[in-house]
Amino acid sequence: MVKVSLEGALAFMGPEGPDYAAAERAHRTLLQRSGAGSEFTGWLDLPQRMADTELKDILAAAQRIRQQGQALLVVGIGGSYLGARAAIELLRGASHNQTSDGAQVYFMGNTLSPDALYELTQELGDRDFTVNVISKSGGTLEPALGFRAAKAMLERKYGKSGAKERIYVTTDARRGILHDTAVAEGYPRFTVPDDVGGRFSVLSAVGLLPMAAAGIDIEAVIACAIRELQELRLSTPDNPAWQYAAARQKLCALGKTTEILACYEPSFRFMAEWWKQLYGESEGKNGLGIYPASVEYNADLHSMGQYIQDGPRCLMETVVSFDRPLHPCAVPFAEGDPDGLNYLAGRELTDIQNVARDAVVAAHVAGGVPNIGIHVPCRDEAGFAALVCFFEAACAVSAYMSGVNPFDQPGVEAYKKNMFRMLKGE
Amino acid sequence: MVKVSLEGALAFMGPEGPDYAAAERAHRTLLQRSGAGSEFTGWLDLPQRMADTELKDILAAAQRIRQQGQALLVVGIGGSYLGARAAIELLRGASHNQTSDGAQVYFMGNTLSPDALYELTQELGDRDFTVNVISKSGGTLEPALGFRAAKAMLERKYGKSGAKERIYVTTDARRGILHDTAVAEGYPRFTVPDDVGGRFSVLSAVGLLPMAAAGIDIEAVIACAIRELQELRLSTPDNPAWQYAAARQKLCALGKTTEILACYEPSFRFMAEWWKQLYGESEGKNGLGIYPASVEYNADLHSMGQYIQDGPRCLMETVVSFDRPLHPCAVPFAEGDPDGLNYLAGRELTDIQNVARDAVVAAHVAGGVPNIGIHVPCRDEAGFAALVCFFEAACAVSAYMSGVNPFDQPGVEAYKKNMFRMLKGE
Repeated sequence: MVKVSLEGALAFMGPEGPDYAAAERAHRTLLQRSGAGSEFTGWLDLPQRMADTELKDILAAAQRIRQQGQALLVVGIGGSYLGARAAIELLRGASHNQTSDGAQVYFMGNTLSPDALYELTQELGDRDFTVNVISKSGGTLEPALGFRAAKAMLERKYGKSGAKERIYVTTDARRGILHDTAVAEGYPRFTVPDDVGGRFSVLSAVGLLPMAAAGIDIEAVIACAIRELQELRLSTPDNPAWQYAAARQKLCALGKTTEILACYEPSFRFMAEWWKQLYGESEGKNGLGIYPASVEYNADLHSMGQYIQDGPRCLMETVVSFDRPLHPCAVPFAEGDPDGLNYLAGRELTDIQNVARDAVVAAHVAGGVPNIGIHVPCRDEAGFAALVCFFEAACAVSAYMSGVNPFDQPGVEAYKKNMFRMLKGE
Repeated sequence: MVKVSLEGALAFMGPEGPDYAAAERAHRTLLQRSGAGSEFTGWLDLPQRMADTELKDILAAAQRIRQQGQALLVVGIGGSYLGARAAIELLRGASHNQTSDGAQVYFMGNTLSPDALYELTQELGDRDFTVNVISKSGGTLEPALGFRAAKAMLERKYGKSGAKERIYVTTDARRGILHDTAVAEGYPRFTVPDDVGGRFSVLSAVGLLPMAAAGIDIEAVIACAIRELQELRLSTPDNPAWQYAAARQKLCALGKTTEILACYEPSFRFMAEWWKQLYGESEGKNGLGIYPASVEYNADLHSMGQYIQDGPRCLMETVVSFDRPLHPCAVPFAEGDPDGLNYLAGRELTDIQNVARDAVVAAHVAGGVPNIGIHVPCRDEAGFAALVCFFEAACAVSAYMSGVNPFDQPGVEAYKKNMFRMLKGE
């Protein structure tokens, strides 16, 4: 379902092109679960496992959440935050809370800003709400403090026993401080799998419960993901995950050390943030890794466009396109043609958007920025599932090609150690 | 009002430190208006000119806009978009449209996505609204098509003559397709100054009219900006603009070619986007320029944090801090201490946020990422004005230090030429 186009990249690579033999080795390592971090490759069959186990419970909980109130506060950070937000914004629009018929979903526990907490309570107003706290261990400071605040808000509004009915916990199946609290209090529990790292967990309960509450058809997402992961097992250079991984590794070796992910849909903003975590955290270690950046076109053509066209030539650009819009719309005719654009009247905005995209690719390639195109049919559940599976598979292949463990994140501990020591006055 | 801290950067620079002599030369070139692009240095006295001329008219128009409806659609791209959005999100929160008592402000004309247009109309619903179209020439495709759509929406709801009463135009004072339309139709007009480029224009009517409509005290912004620009004329190494410009140029020369702008306030997101345009477009030319990236902490500590800690050492990090919150809040006490965090109960979230920030700085500096601190007293009108003036002055100094014209953007034309040729079928 995902198509990769390397037309704008091959000319930069020399006659040998991408190293598909290396991609094949990395892919085999992944599928045989024989590489570094292989204990965290559960995402390879996660959709099938979800279909076989928790999916129905998640749907039932989402229905109850929508019955209990208009709003759901999702407490989480990193992989317990970005996937659900990316999915909901992509599929329901950035303004989903003003337009969607699902639950309004707000995210907290990813900041320590008192102002952000205040603004969230103002936005929530007097609406009925529930809470989904998501944390593997329960020991991460930001969501732990976020959950404290959320629980205090619930208890003020509903009393202690009323609050208890409105808390949904996604955490480790067997252990941890949040698991133990959930068992003691009798909160409904959902599982953060042991063999899936946070940044690969969007198709577990971590992402699926908030998505379902927001009205996304998670059964369709899971069905498409199962098919997509099957297709991504293909062991030839037609595999789009090989193409993307091998192209970006080749370009990186040639000095293109920053990758800009671009999309022409404003609703893609948090998919790009999810992608940054996936690639940054998987590849950025041992002094290695391509810097993952993002832009939002057309807006940023009039911002970062100058730098991309004329700045240092250490960039590559990857453009995600959806082949057809959800809500087609044509340019209106204007009487008297005040802006001189009647030659476009009646033309689909999507066509004009595609012309702009092709014009940008041509300009940037001519300016020395290799281009990788990623095409998905539509900004729907199937398109979301396809992008998630594609980016995850390609990320693991790419990281193995560069020689790092795709599944650990040792560097995240450094500031935490400092912080807990300083907070405890040690 | 802005304080720059180079404590976390000096150790990376060697004994000679930042090149303040070069900063002084660049600053003199700027103030004497003797360098490349000096015809676009009108922003140096723009706040005073606004106070003397359009400010009262903008306030009156903003009041009328609020009387005419709950919502204002702002049509613009690049410098005609990012400044107002940055100001409104910083000062009123990212959810300002759900919580503010000013007009709800929506941005359009920065995308060609039909889905984004559809979602905007859904979000707008049946509320009364007005339109502020912002374009120097009127010839830029995205806002021109955005204005067509906005005008068609107005005419459907209010008829042709009703629509006319609800359109506010910010454009060139004397010429251009949008100027001519505004004169012919009798729309109220505000000025995009001739001597101020788009990315430096937030303190002109371009930014001030949407800000005032949203309920921001633009008289306070302008008064503070006048003071700040005066202070930034200081010709010693105590000038924070010298410190920031000289430090980042030095670090760039030492191989720190990507600058990550970080802030711990989620409401800062679009200030970082504004900053990216300012620095990317001013410095990214002739194969030169520091790549401007951004992160949102604490969230991205659990995303890009790994790469920043352990990836390639070509990064510098600049952290913007507001010294005190608008809405202080302490950690609540939890009965039974289920999460083990009662040792923090009663402590201000801001204190904990500051400990986290200091812990991160220490970890990143130890990991090889130089740190520049930027401190502003508060996330209010004065703080916004100070940051704008500081970043603009430092940007011009920094670009002159690197030998480029800070005020042109020749690279933005490349895709436009392709696009218009392709749209016209040439």
